[in-house]
Amino acid sequence: LALALRRNKLFLFGCSSVLRRNLSVLGSTRSMASKTPVGFIGLGNMGSPMAKNLIKNGYPVIATDVFPECCKELQDLGAQVVDSPAYVAEKADRIITMLPSSPNVIEVYTGSNGILKKVKKGTLLVDSSTIDPAVAREMAVAAEKMGAVFMDAPVSGGVGAASMAKLTFMVGGLEEEFKAAEELFTCMGANVIYCGQVGTGQAAKLCNNMLLSIGMIGTAETMNLGIRLGLDPKLLAKILNMSSGCCWSSDTYNPVPGVMEGVPSANNYQGGFGTTLMAKDLGLAQNTATNTRTPIPLGSLAHQIYRVMCSRGYANKDFSSVFQFLREEEAQ
Amino acid sequence: LALALRRNKLFLFGCSSVLRRNLSVLGSTRSMASKTPVGFIGLGNMGSPMAKNLIKNGYPVIATDVFPECCKELQDLGAQVVDSPAYVAEKADRIITMLPSSPNVIEVYTGSNGILKKVKKGTLLVDSSTIDPAVAREMAVAAEKMGAVFMDAPVSGGVGAASMAKLTFMVGGLEEEFKAAEELFTCMGANVIYCGQVGTGQAAKLCNNMLLSIGMIGTAETMNLGIRLGLDPKLLAKILNMSSGCCWSSDTYNPVPGVMEGVPSANNYQGGFGTTLMAKDLGLAQNTATNTRTPIPLGSLAHQIYRVMCSRGYANKDFSSVFQFLREEEAQ
Amino acid sequence: LALALRRNKLFLFGCSSVLRRNLSVLGSTRSMASKTPVGFIGLGNMGSPMAKNLIKNGYPVIATDVFPECCKELQDLGAQVVDSPAYVAEKADRIITMLPSSPNVIEVYTGSNGILKKVKKGTLLVDSSTIDPAVAREMAVAAEKMGAVFMDAPVSGGVGAASMAKLTFMVGGLEEEFKAAEELFTCMGANVIYCGQVGTGQAAKLCNNMLLSIGMIGTAETMNLGIRLGLDPKLLAKILNMSSGCCWSSDTYNPVPGVMEGVPSANNYQGGFGTTLMAKDLGLAQNTATNTRTPIPLGSLAHQIYRVMCSRGYANKDFSSVFQFLREEEAQ
Amino acid sequence: LALALRRNKLFLFGCSSVLRRNLSVLGSTRSMASKTPVGFIGLGNMGSPMAKNLIKNGYPVIATDVFPECCKELQDLGAQVVDSPAYVAEKADRIITMLPSSPNVIEVYTGSNGILKKVKKGTLLVDSSTIDPAVAREMAVAAEKMGAVFMDAPVSGGVGAASMAKLTFMVGGLEEEFKAAEELFTCMGANVIYCGQVGTGQAAKLCNNMLLSIGMIGTAETMNLGIRLGLDPKLLAKILNMSSGCCWSSDTYNPVPGVMEGVPSANNYQGGFGTTLMAKDLGLAQNTATNTRTPIPLGSLAHQIYRVMCSRGYANKDFSSVFQFLREEEAQ
Repeated sequence: LALALRRNKLFLFGCSSVLRRNLSVLGSTRSMASKTPVGFIGLGNMGSPMAKNLIKNGYPVIATDVFPECCKELQDLGAQVVDSPAYVAEKADRIITMLPSSPNVIEVYTGSNGILKKVKKGTLLVDSSTIDPAVAREMAVAAEKMGAVFMDAPVSGGVGAASMAKLTFMVGGLEEEFKAAEELFTCMGANVIYCGQVGTGQAAKLCNNMLLSIGMIGTAETMNLGIRLGLDPKLLAKILNMSSGCCWSSDTYNPVPGVMEGVPSANNYQGGFGTTLMAKDLGLAQNTATNTRTPIPLGSLAHQIYRVMCSRGYANKDFSSVFQFLREEEAQ
Repeated sequence: LALALRRNKLFLFGCSSVLRRNLSVLGSTRSMASKTPVGFIGLGNMGSPMAKNLIKNGYPVIATDVFPECCKELQDLGAQVVDSPAYVAEKADRIITMLPSSPNVIEVYTGSNGILKKVKKGTLLVDSSTIDPAVAREMAVAAEKMGAVFMDAPVSGGVGAASMAKLTFMVGGLEEEFKAAEELFTCMGANVIYCGQVGTGQAAKLCNNMLLSIGMIGTAETMNLGIRLGLDPKLLAKILNMSSGCCWSSDTYNPVPGVMEGVPSANNYQGGFGTTLMAKDLGLAQNTATNTRTPIPLGSLAHQIYRVMCSRGYANKDFSSVFQFLREEEAQ
Repeated sequence: LALALRRNKLFLFGCSSVLRRNLSVLGSTRSMASKTPVGFIGLGNMGSPMAKNLIKNGYPVIATDVFPECCKELQDLGAQVVDSPAYVAEKADRIITMLPSSPNVIEVYTGSNGILKKVKKGTLLVDSSTIDPAVAREMAVAAEKMGAVFMDAPVSGGVGAASMAKLTFMVGGLEEEFKAAEELFTCMGANVIYCGQVGTGQAAKLCNNMLLSIGMIGTAETMNLGIRLGLDPKLLAKILNMSSGCCWSSDTYNPVPGVMEGVPSANNYQGGFGTTLMAKDLGLAQNTATNTRTPIPLGSLAHQIYRVMCSRGYANKDFSSVFQFLREEEAQ
Repeated sequence: LALALRRNKLFLFGCSSVLRRNLSVLGSTRSMASKTPVGFIGLGNMGSPMAKNLIKNGYPVIATDVFPECCKELQDLGAQVVDSPAYVAEKADRIITMLPSSPNVIEVYTGSNGILKKVKKGTLLVDSSTIDPAVAREMAVAAEKMGAVFMDAPVSGGVGAASMAKLTFMVGGLEEEFKAAEELFTCMGANVIYCGQVGTGQAAKLCNNMLLSIGMIGTAETMNLGIRLGLDPKLLAKILNMSSGCCWSSDTYNPVPGVMEGVPSANNYQGGFGTTLMAKDLGLAQNTATNTRTPIPLGSLAHQIYRVMCSRGYANKDFSSVFQFLREEEAQ
C-alpha cells in the first residue's frame, strides 16, 4: 500500500517529471527487506550525516574518504571502511559520492584508484556534489563506457537538513534508472525533483542559487536605499512583500536585522548559507554561462560581489550579510 | 457601520502605519454628502482616468493640462477646465497633480502660473507623479511657506488599474493630514499605504520598482541559462518557484513565452509596464542612491540594461522583454 | 611681445578652441599694470592656494567663506575679507568661486546673501567647483538675467598643483568672454582648455574622471588576475604598456606596489586623488548620464565600487587603492 | 655576428625575461643552414599564413587539419600533408598548433590520433592557440610524461599581421627551451615576449585583452556621454588624450566615427578585431578569474556586454562597435 501510494504521489506535482514527497508517512516500510550495500565516498560535513541516514534506514554502508579520520564515526555505527573508491566499487552496486568540487569528482571517478577502475556493470553511481554540469556529463560518458549508470543529484538544504534527512535532491539522469536511486534519496531527503538528462540536476541547482543571490543582493541594496530615504525597514519589507518587488530574500530570509526573526540576519549572520559557498556556486554558474555563451549580467556581478566579500571578512557569514557589506555609512 | 468597519480595517495590516482596503464594500457610503471641488492637473494616460473616477464618485473637478485637447473628454463629463495651475489653485482646496517628471512638477507648483502663486491657506496638494523624493520634499517646503500642505502619493498599477480604480497609492506626508486625502485615494484606487514623512511615498515606489527590475532581469537570465543547459522552461520555473530563487517575476509574471498565460510574455510583450517607464523609474532610483551615497550595484546595472534596451527597439515593449533581449542565440 | 606670443600659442594645440600654455616664459609680464580686484569665494584646501596665487600675481583679492577661520591666512597676505558673497559682488567685477558641491554653488550664487543679489552688470563669474553641468547652466541663466556672465572652469590637479599654480582649467562659456578670464587662469594654472558652451568645462572634467576610474579599476583587476596566474607584476605592466591594454593607470600611475616609484601605490596609497573625491565625481557623471539617458555600464559600476570602498575604510586613500581592495586573497 | 647581436638584444627590453626584436636586420641569417621539418596543425585563417611564412623561410612543413581542403594551398607550396596529428608527431620534432579553442587543443594533443600518441622524446610542442592557461598547463604535464616539451605562445595581431610576419608572440614555458622555439617565432612574428612558466603566455594575452575591452567600452561610453553633454568629439578625444583618461582605445583606436582615420570606426567597423573573438577571450579571462577566485568586476561586465552584442548583430563587426551599440538615441 505504501508503495502504491508512493507511486501515485510521484505525479502529483503537476508535471510527470517532478515529484515532491513528504516522507514521514513512509518511514515504517523501509527496513522490511534485507538491503544490498550502498557505497559512500566523501564523508565531510554533508556526506557524513547523509551516510548515517542510510545506516539508520538499514543499508549496509561501505565508505571511504581521503581523510581516514572522517570515517571513524561511521565505522563505529557499523559501516565498512575501505581504502579507496576502487574498493568501494568492487563491493557495492549503488554508490553515492559527496565531494567538494569538480576536480575531486574527476579524481574519485576516473583517478588511478577511482571508481571506474573497478566498477561492475550495471552499477548505479549517484553524485551529490555540486559541480559543473559539463563535468557531470563527462562522468556519465565515462561511466557508460564501463557499463555503469551515472546520475547527478546535488542537494539543497545544508548540514541541518542533511542530519534531519530533509534535503532536496535535484536529479539528472535516465528516467528509467531513477527508481533505483529514489529509495536512497528518500532516506536522506524530503524532496526529490527529477530534472531531465544528466547534468540538469546541477543546472537546476546552479540556476536557483544564481537567482537567489541576485534576489538577495537586490533586496539588501533596496532595503538599504529605502532606509536612507527615510523608510522604516519593517514597513518597507511589508510594502515590497505585498508588491511586485517581492522575492524569497525579502519575505522569507530578509537580510536586515530587526525585520524578521529566526533568520541569520537576526543572529549576526551566523549559520545559514555561507558567503564562500555562494561564491563557489556562482563560479560554477558563471562557468556554465561562459561555456554556453549565455549573457548573465546580474549573475556575473553578483558573483563578483560575493568574491570580494569573501576576501573582506565575510567568508563564513551567511550570504545575507551582503546587507552589512553594503550598508555601512560613509564617513562624512 | 461602514465607517466603523473601515476604521477597524485600517489597522488590520499588522502595522499602524499601513492600511490596505478592499473598496468594494464601501462604495455605497461615498456619495452621501455634497462634495467640494477637487483640482486635477495633468490629464495624460494616467491622470485622465483618475480624474474621471473622481467625477464618477460625485466630485466636481476643476482641471487643466498644458495640452488643452487632453481636457476635452473630461469637460464633456462635466469638469470645469481652466487655463493654468494658478487658476485651479484659486478654485479648489484639494488638488491632485499627475505629471510626467520632476521638471513638470516644479513648473506646475512653482512656475509663474503655478499652483503656489494662488494657493489658499490650508489647501491639500497631492502629487501622484513619480518623481525624485528630494523634489517632493522641496515642493512640501515651498507649499508650507504658503500655508498649504503637500503630500506625495505615487501610484502603482498602470492605465488599466487607473481606469478600474484599482491603483495602489503610496503616500508620504503628515499623518494627521492623511485622512483628508484618503477619501480621494479610495475613489481612484484599491490600496492606500501610508509610508511616512513627505518623500517616502516616492521612496517606497522607487525601491519596489528597483527590486522588481533586478528580479526580472535575474529571472530572465536564469531562465535563459537553464534552457541552454537543457532544462525545460516550465519545469525550471516550477523548481525556482518552490525554492529560494522564487520572486514575483518568476512566479507571477514569468518573462519566458510559454511558461505562463495572461502575462505580457504570452502576448509578444505587448501591454504591461513599458521598458521606457522602467528606465525612467530606475533613473530616479539611481539619483536618490547617488544623492544619499548608497551603493546599488545591481540596481545600477539594471538601470543601464533598460537604458540600452530603450535604444535597441524595446522602448515600448513590456519590461519582461529583457528575456528576449538576452535570449537570442549567437550566430555560430 | 609676450602678449603677441601668447596669442599665437592660443591656437597651437591643433584646434582653434583649445589652448595649452607653458606659463614660465610669461611670468614677467603680469605685474606691469595696476590690477582690478578679484573676488574669491570658497577658501578650502583648493580655493586658498588659488587665491594666494592671485595675490602673488598682484591682484587685490576680496574674499569670503562660510568658515571665517579659513579667511585668516589670506587676510594676513593682504586680502580684504567680507561677510557674504553679496558683499564680494558689490566690490569686484571678476569673481571666482571654489566650492564643495552643487548645493553650495546654488546657495552662493542665488541664496539670500548670494552673489546675484548684488552683482553688477558685466561682472564675470567663474565657478571652478566641480558640479553638475546642469547646475552650471542654471547659474549661467540666472547670471545672464542680472546682466552678468557665468563660466564654468573646473580644475584638475589637486592641492599640490593649486599651490604651484599648475592646475589645468577646463572652461565652458562664451568664447568672446574667455579672454577676460584667461589672465586669471594663468595665475593659477599651467593649462587652460576651452571646451565650448557653458557646462562643457564640467562635462569634460567628468568625462575624463569617469574614464580614468574605469581604467584604474580595470588595471587593478587585470594586474591582480595576472599575478594570480603567475605573471611577474613588473613584466605584466610592461607587456600591457607596449600593447593595446595600455592606459594612464597602467603606465603612469600603476596601482600595484613595487611596479612604479613616485606614485601613491609606492607610498601605501597616501596622497594623490582620494577615493571620496572620485566617488563624488562619479556621482556627478552618473547624474549627467541619467539625465541625458546615456548608458554608462562600466562608469556606473565604477561608481558603485568607489561608493563601497568609501564605507570600507578607503575614503581617504588614493583611488588607486582599489587594487588593495580587490587584491586580498580569500581565506582558504 | 647576427647571432651575437641577437643575444645582446635579448636583454635590451630592460628585464632579463623579455625580448623585443626588430627582425628586419636578421632576415639574411635564416636560410643558411639546411633546416629540419616543422609540424603545423591547424590551417585556419591564422595558421595558414603562419605556416606559409615557415615555408618562405626554408622550413620543410608537415601539416594537417581536420578540414583537408584547408591544406590544399599549403600543399601547393610544398608542404607535406598528412592525415592526423599523430602522423605529424612521427615526422617532426618541432610542432606548432594553432587551433580555435581549448577542446580542439585537448583533442589534437591527447585524442586517439593525437600528437602525444606518437610524439618522440625531446620534441618541442608550441601551442599558439588562445586557450585557458589551465589547459596549457595540463598539456605541458601530459607532454612531459612522454618526454616532450610544451610551450604556450599565443599571438596578438590578427590575420594581417600573420600574413606579414608581424605577429607578437607571448611565450610561456621553460626558459632553457625557449631558444629552440625562438627561430620559428621570428619567421612568423616581429615581437617575442617571454612571460614565464607554462601558461603565462596565455595569461598575458588574456590580461591584455581584458584591459583592452574595459578601456574600449569605457572610451565608448565616455565619448557618448560627452557628446550628449555638448562636447565636440574630436575636442573631447584630445582632452582625454592629454589627461589621465587616456588609453589605447582613446588615442590609437578611437571608436567614434570621425575622430580618427585608418581605424575600424572610420570604416563602418569593418576589419579589426571582431566582437566574437573579444567575447571568446573574455570568456577565457572570466574562467581563469573564476578558477583563481579573483574578482574582476569590470572585466566580467565587459564580457557580458560583448556577449550580448554578439547576439544583437555585432558578432562580425570590430569590437570598437560597442560605441554604436551604446550610442543610439532613445526614441523620445
